[in-house]
Amino acid sequence: MASAHREPEKVKAIVKTSDADVFIAVAGLSAALPGVVASMTVRPVIGVPREVKLGGIDSLLSIAQMPPGVPVATVGIDNGKNAALLAIQILSLKDNSLKQRVEEFRGKKK
Amino acid sequence: MASAHREPEKVKAIVKTSDADVFIAVAGLSAALPGVVASMTVRPVIGVPREVKLGGIDSLLSIAQMPPGVPVATVGIDNGKNAALLAIQILSLKDNSLKQRVEEFRGKKK
Amino acid sequence: MASAHREPEKVKAIVKTSDADVFIAVAGLSAALPGVVASMTVRPVIGVPREVKLGGIDSLLSIAQMPPGVPVATVGIDNGKNAALLAIQILSLKDNSLKQRVEEFRGKKK
Amino acid sequence: MASAHREPEKVKAIVKTSDADVFIAVAGLSAALPGVVASMTVRPVIGVPREVKLGGIDSLLSIAQMPPGVPVATVGIDNGKNAALLAIQILSLKDNSLKQRVEEFRGKKK
Amino acid sequence: MASAHREPEKVKAIVKTSDADVFIAVAGLSAALPGVVASMTVRPVIGVPREVKLGGIDSLLSIAQMPPGVPVATVGIDNGKNAALLAIQILSLKDNSLKQRVEEFRGKKK
Amino acid sequence: MASAHREPEKVKAIVKTSDADVFIAVAGLSAALPGVVASMTVRPVIGVPREVKLGGIDSLLSIAQMPPGVPVATVGIDNGKNAALLAIQILSLKDNSLKQRVEEFRGKKK
Amino acid sequence: MASAHREPEKVKAIVKTSDADVFIAVAGLSAALPGVVASMTVRPVIGVPREVKLGGIDSLLSIAQMPPGVPVATVGIDNGKNAALLAIQILSLKDNSLKQRVEEFRGKKK
Amino acid sequence: MASAHREPEKVKAIVKTSDADVFIAVAGLSAALPGVVASMTVRPVIGVPREVKLGGIDSLLSIAQMPPGVPVATVGIDNGKNAALLAIQILSLKDNSLKQRVEEFRGKKK
Repeated sequence: MASAHREPEKVKAIVKTSDADVFIAVAGLSAALPGVVASMTVRPVIGVPREVKLGGIDSLLSIAQMPPGVPVATVGIDNGKNAALLAIQILSLKDNSLKQRVEEFRGKKK
Repeated sequence: MASAHREPEKVKAIVKTSDADVFIAVAGLSAALPGVVASMTVRPVIGVPREVKLGGIDSLLSIAQMPPGVPVATVGIDNGKNAALLAIQILSLKDNSLKQRVEEFRGKKK
Repeated sequence: MASAHREPEKVKAIVKTSDADVFIAVAGLSAALPGVVASMTVRPVIGVPREVKLGGIDSLLSIAQMPPGVPVATVGIDNGKNAALLAIQILSLKDNSLKQRVEEFRGKKK
Repeated sequence: MASAHREPEKVKAIVKTSDADVFIAVAGLSAALPGVVASMTVRPVIGVPREVKLGGIDSLLSIAQMPPGVPVATVGIDNGKNAALLAIQILSLKDNSLKQRVEEFRGKKK
Repeated sequence: MASAHREPEKVKAIVKTSDADVFIAVAGLSAALPGVVASMTVRPVIGVPREVKLGGIDSLLSIAQMPPGVPVATVGIDNGKNAALLAIQILSLKDNSLKQRVEEFRGKKK
Repeated sequence: MASAHREPEKVKAIVKTSDADVFIAVAGLSAALPGVVASMTVRPVIGVPREVKLGGIDSLLSIAQMPPGVPVATVGIDNGKNAALLAIQILSLKDNSLKQRVEEFRGKKK
Repeated sequence: MASAHREPEKVKAIVKTSDADVFIAVAGLSAALPGVVASMTVRPVIGVPREVKLGGIDSLLSIAQMPPGVPVATVGIDNGKNAALLAIQILSLKDNSLKQRVEEFRGKKK
Repeated sequence: MASAHREPEKVKAIVKTSDADVFIAVAGLSAALPGVVASMTVRPVIGVPREVKLGGIDSLLSIAQMPPGVPVATVGIDNGKNAALLAIQILSLKDNSLKQRVEEFRGKKK
């Protein structure tokens, strides 16, 4: 993907032309990318903090502490797996076959 | 709602019988509720950390730092508004009229 | 043992059928396991935070900052030795030979 | 009770002559009291961090991060209620009537 | 001014049409505004973290920990006075009368 | 350069006799150098925190949290590149050829 | 006293002409004063961090984390009493009557 | 030396029989040793936090945040050199030849 701080126009172009239902943005340090993407779309945005400095607490706070009105769904530091799974869970709300696959993956036997 | 630590059976009953598409769980301190709900369902779970002690950093970490395999979509400390908005954005993926209302709310004029 | 978030039913089965007097639960990140076990029993539960991210401060806070009504006896980060010793000290309250062994181990010469 | 730093002799006299099965020590800031008591006895010691400065993180770390060999059962910041409950849960291991009362208090209906 | 997350287009319009030599951006929480402004201009951008939650450490880290290539000149939490003074010091590099006034203000007597 | 704490006279001599328009001071731990330089000049001072202990949070706070009246333009931990770029951006306010080179470097194509 | 950042010359004049055996410097935020004084004298310098922002952790780190070669004797946040007592304990090494008074004050009965 | 938590009697014997003018105590984690020594003597006690977990912030807080009435002169994390230098500076108050050597070491040329 692109960098929110170094290539803001490229980020905007990607978000505006994308037909994705859910965005996943990974970022370290100031970690502005998820919030910038969230400011450009009303589709759900998932943010993944990366550990670059300070154990990643800087990026976790930058992504989670969004101002009221522009939510980012934050997952744990370097936890891209949970971001992917969350995206699939969101998409499976309108796709029953996907939901079944998630349930199998999660080992549910209800 | 119920407390994950004090009423685990009640939480389970609520989650298992609910027909909600998205769960929002608010919790302070150890803040286990969002993770416990997430362990019981494959529908998206949004967690809202509350500031009770330490400025709320304890609950933010407890909610965000979930183990791989059980995602919680974490929003900022005491930011219930973003939790509600995120839930609506998720739901609007399969509801176009809802999506239009979110876009109006967010003041989009694309 | 089992994971509180990935195998909640298995955790419950273990706790409910166990005849242990004291539980020790080790967990990293959100570290819900000790609190979940504590919510299922009135026997003492000892929690050991593990360092996975952020030096382990996330798991220490998740385990120590339990809500009033559901205590977990928290020991230091990665300090399984103290958890074992604390368990033995608790058990030795009703077992004098155990108490003598702890006193010898701790090098008491009263 | 007494202060570990200002009245070390008094603390020692109390611990050595007490016939308590479990000790609860409350302390803020450097919070040495629980560890000092733990160094004087093999009976379980419960430590309660108090919020005096820095939201209480200083006392939480001082109490929880004990060296291997001298455990303190740490509860949450200012959470005296959990300390009392933990003490009762420990004592109820050898007192069945106490155990029943705890189960009633915790609202268990197994 | 405008909000980076809620009004990205407005921020861009302001920055692109402004003839200011130095920008000052004040922001709390995720505090993306200074970085977003900095991504849109090569003129110096000064960022002022505001204390909204967590004592302001979230906004300080969000503003200071910019990725290499897009600098923000960060001042202390809620320290708008230093931001103004820094801006004047920067501007006085090409304005000797301004420099004299700063020296008087700072009480220099070289 | 010199150490603020070990060679205060040398630092003063350098600052007072320098004809630099902008100072960059790099420091770890207590990181007094940027603030000490800032106390000796009205020209802009850029501070770069170094990671020596605690992930560098000690030096970041020491440099950023200057008292009102003596600003330091703080960049991210170990982010000397941003310090250099910020210095160039400041200098380019009175040097158009420099400004063009920064714009080229930052990849602007307005 | 004087401010290290706003009145460096005044601080130097005070330290160089003082005949005090021990210096006590109180400072908040970046808290450079104790270190600056310590860089100007080989007499012991005691630093007292003040809580202004972030619970005082910024000033505690700024004062305690001095580089090797220039020690500051740091006491707790806002703990001027301990600074005074430490100064008296240091001075009492060469003044027996002072030592007796400290012992009485501390309630020693050896 | 001895461990405050594992060998409290040995620590006491060392402190009470020592004819040292200044004590230096090094400790990690809960880091009770400096405070325990300080509670046993009115001579100055210097505490050196060690980095064992959490970058050493636990031991720094445990040593610095002493309650009013029992001071410990805290130096930086793992900064034994500053502890030694501080001890020498304290001792040199009553030993002029020592003072001269410190001044030479610190490179003073007044």
